[in-house]
Amino acid sequence: MNASTMSNPYSPSKRAEMAAGQPISMLMAHALENADLLSLAAGFVDEATLPTDAVREACNAIMGDERAARAALQYGSTAGNRRLRAMLLDRFLADQSTSLASPPGIDQVVITAGSNQLLHLIAESILDPGDLVLCTAPTYFVFLGTLANVGARGHGIETDDKGMIPESLDDHLAHLNAAGELARVKAIYLVPYFDNPQGITTSPQRTARIVEIAKRWSIDHTIHVIADEAYRELRYSGPQVDSARAYDDDGETVIVAGTFSKSFSPGLRVGWGMLPRNLVEPVCNQKGNMDFGSPNFAQSIICYAVEHGLFDRQIEVLRQGYAPKLQAMLEAADEFLGPIEGTSWTHPTGGLYVWARMPNGLNTGPDGPLFQRAIEEGMLYVPGRYCFPLEGEPVPENTMRLSFGVQTAERIREGMRALATAVRKAQATR
Amino acid sequence: MNASTMSNPYSPSKRAEMAAGQPISMLMAHALENADLLSLAAGFVDEATLPTDAVREACNAIMGDERAARAALQYGSTAGNRRLRAMLLDRFLADQSTSLASPPGIDQVVITAGSNQLLHLIAESILDPGDLVLCTAPTYFVFLGTLANVGARGHGIETDDKGMIPESLDDHLAHLNAAGELARVKAIYLVPYFDNPQGITTSPQRTARIVEIAKRWSIDHTIHVIADEAYRELRYSGPQVDSARAYDDDGETVIVAGTFSKSFSPGLRVGWGMLPRNLVEPVCNQKGNMDFGSPNFAQSIICYAVEHGLFDRQIEVLRQGYAPKLQAMLEAADEFLGPIEGTSWTHPTGGLYVWARMPNGLNTGPDGPLFQRAIEEGMLYVPGRYCFPLEGEPVPENTMRLSFGVQTAERIREGMRALATAVRKAQATR
Repeated sequence: MNASTMSNPYSPSKRAEMAAGQPISMLMAHALENADLLSLAAGFVDEATLPTDAVREACNAIMGDERAARAALQYGSTAGNRRLRAMLLDRFLADQSTSLASPPGIDQVVITAGSNQLLHLIAESILDPGDLVLCTAPTYFVFLGTLANVGARGHGIETDDKGMIPESLDDHLAHLNAAGELARVKAIYLVPYFDNPQGITTSPQRTARIVEIAKRWSIDHTIHVIADEAYRELRYSGPQVDSARAYDDDGETVIVAGTFSKSFSPGLRVGWGMLPRNLVEPVCNQKGNMDFGSPNFAQSIICYAVEHGLFDRQIEVLRQGYAPKLQAMLEAADEFLGPIEGTSWTHPTGGLYVWARMPNGLNTGPDGPLFQRAIEEGMLYVPGRYCFPLEGEPVPENTMRLSFGVQTAERIREGMRALATAVRKAQATR
Repeated sequence: MNASTMSNPYSPSKRAEMAAGQPISMLMAHALENADLLSLAAGFVDEATLPTDAVREACNAIMGDERAARAALQYGSTAGNRRLRAMLLDRFLADQSTSLASPPGIDQVVITAGSNQLLHLIAESILDPGDLVLCTAPTYFVFLGTLANVGARGHGIETDDKGMIPESLDDHLAHLNAAGELARVKAIYLVPYFDNPQGITTSPQRTARIVEIAKRWSIDHTIHVIADEAYRELRYSGPQVDSARAYDDDGETVIVAGTFSKSFSPGLRVGWGMLPRNLVEPVCNQKGNMDFGSPNFAQSIICYAVEHGLFDRQIEVLRQGYAPKLQAMLEAADEFLGPIEGTSWTHPTGGLYVWARMPNGLNTGPDGPLFQRAIEEGMLYVPGRYCFPLEGEPVPENTMRLSFGVQTAERIREGMRALATAVRKAQATR
């Protein structure tokens, strides 16, 4: 800090203070400082599977039609490309096993810069500082950052391999009510499909009960269920299950967030929300103030890809690309972590992540005995503690998120072996 | 509202309440309800001038190179494409008439979703509810919405055809200081080139004084000067003038916002900021929480266009396209408004707007005698009152913003004639 900034310091807003210190910065700094580190931390998609042919075809078609080209390069509306929104809605409704009691209209579909922007807009629209959002424990750590950014608090609910446990949710709500905090509870956040960080899918029975519980506790105001369906399309085996929206009779409780970032291309950054009627205007107001609507050009490309079957083809490519990687990670976990007593891990059937539990007492945090050793052995993981809300269920110290999206099967195996070596070394020095 | 939403109402956040009621919604509703309305209100760019050839070439080049294609479709960094940032910085420095005392480094250049997102990120990073930003009166009305969204207050400073008047700025600061409000003043907002809404350019002498005044009043904290250079490239005649950044000796006061939305394509939505060192981290923290960085694909297209001279060529196309429209609007103003006593208007040499003053006492607001008559005559303008901060200088009731970007020269003439007819009719019934 030089003399001039010392005499006239920057005075950060409360927002700026709340936005600082997200763990992703630390992880990225480690990854950048150690370029040959085998990262099982990054949630990036596999570059080899990116849909270059599909985007080339879409660009040629759009830019080859002067009228379409001009429309794509002009401003769009705040809510986004209407044809794309109509297709998203049709596909969503067709994907459910039964017809919805109260299907959303096209005006309730809004295009955003990835699902992350939707989560941000929702947070801005329903949360005041001090408000509570109930989350699985663990949950998507970037969303915890979004909450921190608006001064809201995440509150962890007990979670097993079928997702958030409804009884635990009900208990926590009862306790919060008794503590006079119910008025602060504004939403329940779920990643129902192949979640980040555990890779698990919420069972339909649980989803139905969670929606019912949200409605039951919506006494003075609506407690929304935010269903972040970012990984929905990355299903490698097992049946498709219905969206939480299918269990929302009047459509005023569940917010669905979707994205093409995982299922098509993060570089285009197109996501969407399917909103309760009451939230359409506030979300669009926020978005209008922020960017006037997401880039039209990227929406045109996605629209073409969906319309011409290129998106569905890409989903098949992803399934074929990721399924063997998931397999490789689970096999390597069996081979290398299996012999270490006290370890366990999830067995996802989709998504990009496996969640692992180390032996009791082995702290996986950045200052614990394992994290630095794992780096020395050449691999990087996401310490599980980042994925836990600070309130609610206790935070275990021995968990981690492992991503299989980016690395090859061979490298995944190598990374898992390095992890096991680091675990044994950490245990030996305890 | 149905029974269910009545029993469980949506409870908006304070943010959501602050974001509501932006005038742009009202204007767009009018435009949509009256599709054949001749709009001199919209600030859109002319569809006929959009750079389809350039984007086609860029897409072919990027998608024709498998490696470049994959990079463009993958996540980028939060701060944006490094090559693009380097080029923006080089071009910016080369554009100034002298070398900067404290030139920004590449780390101080951040890519955003249009300059509007940068303004939003800056507002989030430096403003708390109740804080003040001093603006020209009139100023860019969307920025007033951004301020309202974070609970901050715009405060109008006297402005003439050379821009914000430094003596008025100094006076207002002295009064705010005397009123104990200086600690609330966080920034001075300028659109230095061909501004929205007046089309005027701040004279270099004034810019230098405004930066000096900002520094002089930065007693307990830095009062930033936000230089929104959105229209910088749309210069049809007259000399280029230096950026406000050129007058910032230590580089800690001036924030520069730029965009390719007006100068290239709003559908790609790429803007940038050149930030004081202290603001880089808070702005990137906010952006990371919001969208992880702007879409890589659009940045790649812009990068190619700048690198291969297509962007410079496009600026020439725009100059040749807009200059005659500006001319048409000024001639039509002479012809139709000139004979009406008490009218006057600005004479810009760039940008997309002319600012007009109607006879004293003629209220141009949406509920006044002119607005609805103008619609009946077939034209739409932006009521000037939307462009004035609620505090500071008094708000005149007889002004309007007229855009010449979208319509043909012929239609501009028609719109101005319709406006003059409406003015005469409104006067006749007073």
